[in-house]
Amino acid sequence: MSKDITSRSEDYSQWYIDLVRKAGLADYSAVKGCMVIKPYGFAIWENMRDTLDRMFKETGHVNAYFPLFIPKSFLSKEAAHVEGFAKECAVVTHYRLKNAEDGSGVVVDPDARLEEELIVRPTSETIIWNTYRDWIQSYRDLPLLINQWANVVRWEMRTRLFLRTAEFLWQEGHTAHATREEAIEETRKMLDVYATFAEEWMALPVIKGVKTANECFAGAEDTYCIEALMQDGKALQAGTSHFLGQNFAKAFDVQFSSKEGTLEYVWATSWGVSTRLMGALVMAHSDDEGLIIPPKIAPHQVVIVPIPKPLAELDEAINNVAKELRTRGIRVKIDTDDQNRPGYKFAEYEKIGIPVRLAVGARDLAAGTIEVARRDTREKQSVALEGIGDYVANLLDEIQRNLFERAKSFRDERITRVDSWEEFIKALDEKGGFVSAHWDGTGETEDLIKDETKATIRCIPLNNPQEQGVCVRTGKPSTQRVLFARAY
Amino acid sequence: MSKDITSRSEDYSQWYIDLVRKAGLADYSAVKGCMVIKPYGFAIWENMRDTLDRMFKETGHVNAYFPLFIPKSFLSKEAAHVEGFAKECAVVTHYRLKNAEDGSGVVVDPDARLEEELIVRPTSETIIWNTYRDWIQSYRDLPLLINQWANVVRWEMRTRLFLRTAEFLWQEGHTAHATREEAIEETRKMLDVYATFAEEWMALPVIKGVKTANECFAGAEDTYCIEALMQDGKALQAGTSHFLGQNFAKAFDVQFSSKEGTLEYVWATSWGVSTRLMGALVMAHSDDEGLIIPPKIAPHQVVIVPIPKPLAELDEAINNVAKELRTRGIRVKIDTDDQNRPGYKFAEYEKIGIPVRLAVGARDLAAGTIEVARRDTREKQSVALEGIGDYVANLLDEIQRNLFERAKSFRDERITRVDSWEEFIKALDEKGGFVSAHWDGTGETEDLIKDETKATIRCIPLNNPQEQGVCVRTGKPSTQRVLFARAY
Repeated sequence: MSKDITSRSEDYSQWYIDLVRKAGLADYSAVKGCMVIKPYGFAIWENMRDTLDRMFKETGHVNAYFPLFIPKSFLSKEAAHVEGFAKECAVVTHYRLKNAEDGSGVVVDPDARLEEELIVRPTSETIIWNTYRDWIQSYRDLPLLINQWANVVRWEMRTRLFLRTAEFLWQEGHTAHATREEAIEETRKMLDVYATFAEEWMALPVIKGVKTANECFAGAEDTYCIEALMQDGKALQAGTSHFLGQNFAKAFDVQFSSKEGTLEYVWATSWGVSTRLMGALVMAHSDDEGLIIPPKIAPHQVVIVPIPKPLAELDEAINNVAKELRTRGIRVKIDTDDQNRPGYKFAEYEKIGIPVRLAVGARDLAAGTIEVARRDTREKQSVALEGIGDYVANLLDEIQRNLFERAKSFRDERITRVDSWEEFIKALDEKGGFVSAHWDGTGETEDLIKDETKATIRCIPLNNPQEQGVCVRTGKPSTQRVLFARAY
Repeated sequence: MSKDITSRSEDYSQWYIDLVRKAGLADYSAVKGCMVIKPYGFAIWENMRDTLDRMFKETGHVNAYFPLFIPKSFLSKEAAHVEGFAKECAVVTHYRLKNAEDGSGVVVDPDARLEEELIVRPTSETIIWNTYRDWIQSYRDLPLLINQWANVVRWEMRTRLFLRTAEFLWQEGHTAHATREEAIEETRKMLDVYATFAEEWMALPVIKGVKTANECFAGAEDTYCIEALMQDGKALQAGTSHFLGQNFAKAFDVQFSSKEGTLEYVWATSWGVSTRLMGALVMAHSDDEGLIIPPKIAPHQVVIVPIPKPLAELDEAINNVAKELRTRGIRVKIDTDDQNRPGYKFAEYEKIGIPVRLAVGARDLAAGTIEVARRDTREKQSVALEGIGDYVANLLDEIQRNLFERAKSFRDERITRVDSWEEFIKALDEKGGFVSAHWDGTGETEDLIKDETKATIRCIPLNNPQEQGVCVRTGKPSTQRVLFARAY
C-alpha cells in the first residue's frame, strides 16, 4: 500500500482525494470551490477530450464558441430552466475596480455598476438559443449540429475535486432540428456516443437510461443518461443527453419556415460530459497503490526504467525498445531520473497509474530479457526482448479489456432485484450498487425514498422490460422496475 | 467584388467587419463586448491552436488549467500589475439569485454577497504564481514549463470582433526558472515559436522586437513582441513574450533552495497569443471578394464543385479526385448543394477563402481535365486529371509561399527610414506602415509623439544596429532607430 495514500477500506473519500492530489491530477485552489487541474491530470483530460471531439466530428458536429456571460434576464425566459440554474451562480455586477482611498489595495468602483447583471454561464442553452434565432430561418438551415468546449460555473457549497466544483470544464452540444423525431434521434445518438466512449476508452461499463421527471434537466422534456458504478457501491452519472422539445425555441422565439412553407418552432437537444469523468475514472479502476488508467487514455502507456548502474548498452537497449514501441503508436516514457532507487520509482509509477512498466538491468540484458509489470494486476514477468513490441501492444489491449471486464463484473454483481422494502434497504445498506425495484411512478414516492434512504432513481433503463408489480415503498401498482442507488 | 462586402477602398473598417460576419467567422452577441465565434471561424482557430499546442509540447511544455476567478486582493500584490489589469475587469460580487418579489424574474440575492470579490481573470499570473508557491521548493522542481488555453475577460468599451473584445480566447504560458539567464532564454525561445508560427503557418511576416518601458506588460521587466502589418498600413501586435524577472515570485513569495543550498526567488516568464490572431489573419491576406486563408490553416484546403447537370460519372470522377487529394493529407470539401448555380457557389467559396477550387463538368470529363482556380491570385487553369493530386499539393505549397511573399513585400515597402519630423509625419500619413526613426529614449517623448500622431513605438527590433543620431521629435541624442506605427 502506498504510504501517502489512505486505503479504501480505511476511508474511501480520503483515498479518493489523496489519489487525485498525490498522483498529480488536481488540487484545491485559493478560490473556494475552484480547482487547479495539474499537468498530469490535464494530459488525461486532453486524451478524453480529443477522443470525444473526434467522435463528435465523425457524427457531423462542429465546434463554436459562445460568451461566458449570460444576461440575467435570459435565465428567466424558460420557466423550468431558471428554477434549476438561476439560484447558485456567479453574478457579475461591476466592470471596474479603483484604488482604495486608504491605499490598502483596490475596491469595486460603485460608479461601474452594470445596468443588467451578467451570470457566469452555468450551462449555455439560453445564450445559444438567443443566437440561434439569428441563424435559423429556413428548414435549409437545419439541422444545426454545434458543440462547445468551455468552462462553466455552478456555485457549490460542498465541493470535491472533479466530482463537484464551482468551475468545471465540459463540452455542451446544442443542436437544432426540424422535427421532433430527428431531435429525439440525435439525443439517443449522442447518448450512444457517450456510452461507447465510456466503455471503449475509459473501460467504464455504463447503463443507458432515461431520468424520471424529478431528475430531468431543467428545461428538458426527457433526459437520457449513462450511469456508472464506483468501487464504494455508489452510482455516478457520467453523461447526459437532453431532448429539449421546443422549450427553448419558444422561450427565444426561434422559428423556421418548413419545406411546406409553414412557420414552426425548432426542436432542440443538448448533451454534455465534464471533468467529472476524471473522478469516475479514478474511482472506477484505481487501488490502494494509486491510479489505474486504461491504456487508451493514459498519457504514458509504458514507462521504461533502467536498473542502475547505468551502462551505455543499457541506454541503447532502452532506446531500441522505446523505438519499437513508438513505431506501434505506443506512448512511452523513458525514466531518466538518477536521484531515486528503482523501488521508489516503481511505487511512483504505480501511483500515477502507468499501465505497463518495463525494467531492464545489466543482468536482463545479458539474458536477452526485460521485466514487464502490468499495473492492473500488478503481475511481473520476464519477457524476451525479441518481439517486445508486439508483446507490449497485446498486453495494452489485454489490460484495457481486463479493466472493463473487472469493472463490469463488479457492477453486474451489484445490481440487485428486490421485491420488498426490507430487501430494498438491505441491498442498499449491505451491498450497495443498483437496486432494481418496482416504483409507483410518482415524484412523491421518489422523494420519500430519497429522504429515507438517500437513494435516488438513477434511471429507467432503455428498452426496460414491462412487467406488472407493486411499488416497493407504497405497494401501489407498477409496470416496470427502475434502478435506484446512492449516488455522487 | 462580392456584393455583400464593402470594399477596402470604400471603408476598410467596414470591409473587415463585413468579412468576419459574412464569411461566418464571428458575430456580435447579446452580451456587450462579447463575440460568438461561429463554426467556420472556430475551425480556423482550432487549426491555429492545435499547431501552436504541438509547438509548445515540442519545446517541452505541458498544459494545465487554473481557476477562472482571481481573488481581488491577489491583483494588488504586484504593484505594476494591478495598475495595468485591475481597472477594467468583470467583478463577481454575489453567488446567488432569487425570485423577484413582484414575480418579474430573478434578482441578485443581497444575502449572497461574497466576502471578497472575485475578478474574472484578465490574465493569470497572480493565481498561477500563488499556486506555484506550493509546487516549487527545490531547484529539482524547476524549470516548470506550463501553458494554459483559456478564456479571459478585459472590459473594453470600444470593441471590434477578434481584435478587441471583452472576452477572448488565448493561451498563456507561465514558466518558472532557477536563473535569470534561463528565463530570458525561455522568453526569447517562445518569441521564436510565435514568429515561426506566424510566418510559416499564417503566412504573416513579423518583426521581432522588444517593447519600450511605456508599452511593457504590467509586471514584466521586458516584453518581447512580434509585430505584423495590416493592409491599411496599421501595425498589429501578434504575440508577446514577457521576462517577468522575480516580480511575481517576490509578490507571492515563491522561493526555492538552490543546488548550493541557498534560498532564492524564482525567475519567471509568461507569453501569450489570442483570438486576435484571427483578426490579423483576415486583415493580412484577404481582398474585396472575401477571405484568403493560407492553406496550412484553412479548414478546407480544396473544394470540388460539380458543374450540373450532375452525372453518375461526374460523382465518380469527383470522388476519385477527392480520394487522391485526401491520401496526400489534403483537406477536401465536396460541394453537394443542388440549390444554387455554380457562379453563386464560386463566389461563396471565394468569400470563405478556400485556397483551391476545382470545378468539373461533363465537358471537362470528356477532355480528361479539371478547372483549377487559386484563391490568392484568382487565376483559373484547365489541368489534366491525370496527376491532379501532385498538382494540387504543389499548388497549395505555392499559394502558402505566395501569400507570405506578397505580405512580406507589402510590409517591406512600408518600412520607411526618416530623419526629420516632417518626413516622419509624411511617412505616417501618406504611406502608413512602420517608420524607422531615432528617438531620445524617454517615455515623455514617446507619449508626446503618440498624442500628436497616434503613432506608438511598436518595438525596438532585436539585434537593432546601434548608430548615432538625433531624436526626430526632440533633437536630443539617440543611439538607435526604433519602429513607430499607428496600430490596432
